[in-house]
Amino acid sequence: MKHYLHPEPFELEMGGSLPRLEIAYHTFGTLNDAKDNVVWVCHALTANSDVADWWPGTVAEGRFLDPARYFIVCANIIGSCYGTTGPMSENPATGKPYYSKFPKYTMRDIVRAHIILADALGIGRIHALVGSSVGGFQAVEWAVMQPQRIERLALIATDAYASPWTIAIDETQRMAILSDPTYAEDRPGGGAKGLAAARAIGLLTYRGGKGYNITQQDPQAEDYLAPDHRACTYQRYQGKKLVGRFDAYSYMAILQSFDTHHAGRGRGGLEAALSAIACPTLVIGLTTDIIFTPEEMRRLASMIPAARYAEIDSPFGHDGFLVEADQLNALLKPFIDAQG
Amino acid sequence: MKHYLHPEPFELEMGGSLPRLEIAYHTFGTLNDAKDNVVWVCHALTANSDVADWWPGTVAEGRFLDPARYFIVCANIIGSCYGTTGPMSENPATGKPYYSKFPKYTMRDIVRAHIILADALGIGRIHALVGSSVGGFQAVEWAVMQPQRIERLALIATDAYASPWTIAIDETQRMAILSDPTYAEDRPGGGAKGLAAARAIGLLTYRGGKGYNITQQDPQAEDYLAPDHRACTYQRYQGKKLVGRFDAYSYMAILQSFDTHHAGRGRGGLEAALSAIACPTLVIGLTTDIIFTPEEMRRLASMIPAARYAEIDSPFGHDGFLVEADQLNALLKPFIDAQG
Repeated sequence: MKHYLHPEPFELEMGGSLPRLEIAYHTFGTLNDAKDNVVWVCHALTANSDVADWWPGTVAEGRFLDPARYFIVCANIIGSCYGTTGPMSENPATGKPYYSKFPKYTMRDIVRAHIILADALGIGRIHALVGSSVGGFQAVEWAVMQPQRIERLALIATDAYASPWTIAIDETQRMAILSDPTYAEDRPGGGAKGLAAARAIGLLTYRGGKGYNITQQDPQAEDYLAPDHRACTYQRYQGKKLVGRFDAYSYMAILQSFDTHHAGRGRGGLEAALSAIACPTLVIGLTTDIIFTPEEMRRLASMIPAARYAEIDSPFGHDGFLVEADQLNALLKPFIDAQG
Repeated sequence: MKHYLHPEPFELEMGGSLPRLEIAYHTFGTLNDAKDNVVWVCHALTANSDVADWWPGTVAEGRFLDPARYFIVCANIIGSCYGTTGPMSENPATGKPYYSKFPKYTMRDIVRAHIILADALGIGRIHALVGSSVGGFQAVEWAVMQPQRIERLALIATDAYASPWTIAIDETQRMAILSDPTYAEDRPGGGAKGLAAARAIGLLTYRGGKGYNITQQDPQAEDYLAPDHRACTYQRYQGKKLVGRFDAYSYMAILQSFDTHHAGRGRGGLEAALSAIACPTLVIGLTTDIIFTPEEMRRLASMIPAARYAEIDSPFGHDGFLVEADQLNALLKPFIDAQG
């Protein structure tokens, strides 16, 4: 992981500022002399800049993120706990971490930080910009903000705005975190139980009914009187696992920025904003995604001038984008490898 | 509301017992001399015996629950806080409410209490048994337990077993409640914040994406930087509303019984159990229900010998069964009114 320190304060769209902005990022492969082989990946909610770690089957020879061919960049988003400035970073004003007092910021702030990093790395045009889920929020924003810079856009299981449904999911997670009073203590590990519950809520929506019914069925009907069900231990395990690698303050910060996402804000609405995207765009939905449904993905594609819609058949809901690497590769590799 | 006091201790399937079982219930209309006009309604999770209150447009002249024609009975389920013995009832052993120490019980215990009440009311055969959601869990069980007693069965947005998906939803709600440490205090109002979060989780699954996107959209894109979103206030309002009429202990108890539901348990599996249901059965699904999907409802119908499947077209997900009274009536009235 590499680090870039922005040499001046970073002003936030909602009025606050970060006196110090550090951006942690990963790169894979080499920037060629023509500087025309950049594939920029935007990561989702609790993922991080190490794409090869969280997106199996993508960063490898012969795959759409081929390090032998491309200079692949992924930056940790503002508010994350993986190295970019966030709630667990030291607040220069107090000498202590921000915790719950991290200033409010927007999806556009996240993208402006990506742009700062891209400029600092000497990157001009971006051969392909790839975003899945909240990564797609960033990719849409970036393509609207710098349409001339982006040569190809891949939007996977995402949207151009946070729908009321997704905001309701976020608010429900906040309610779970805030029902844990240790969150308000602003200390390492604060809100851990609430965070575990929030993660379990998220998982319900990531995986959806079919995913659970395929993988979490108790072996026998007689198990229904056992003290625990497989689906229960799974939820608790996943909650605990996130608590081991994340924190409630960063999680709350990212949810807050999620809810600001609306590419049409201040731009005359969604259609007007998206009509600015000039490059070939591949919009990919998943048949059983209940967060960003195929219907909504088709609508997104219909609003971007040079967009094409494709669908991945998966029983694993939104999480399908992490699971169905082969289907994803079959769609994305030719799209990204195309010349011109 | 009427009350029936069971004259002896009620032994529970999982080994405990209720020294005192009181059953609170509503009736509408009059039992005729032939005692052949009973329509029994089983209520869902946090509903109660007052069907006319929670199921608008059903208990009225010309509707499928016509009190001029039928003797309609609905009993509060064990564990509920609406009058039937539950966690807020006095535990005779301590002289205080059970709170979190209410003994574990099953969906079959709930149904055995219904049977006790039906017998006590002098009811023999039941002209129609109607259950939606968790009410359908009870109705399936009852039809399997007393196939000769039930003359018509209507199963709406429900299943013959708690799927891993529904159990995962329950576990997530438990995680939210248990992240509120006041739950463990075993006192009135304990776990209230956690209960509000749990309710918000439930609502996500009851309503689903389309429901939120239709009703909870912020008026303008510019509102996305406002301190709150419509979808957020809705979730908090609904959480608060449930806290005003329910309690975390009863909620946890009912979730626990929910997760025991498997009509095939101890009966050689689902198909063997459901093949015992002899009466005409109408299975009704809702197009956008993400808890009990149309696919699963069709599967349920396929396992019951004399079952027919019908579907309600609604954008309101599982909650559609509470909203689409006219479509429901068009299906249920002819089914219930049919002779023979």
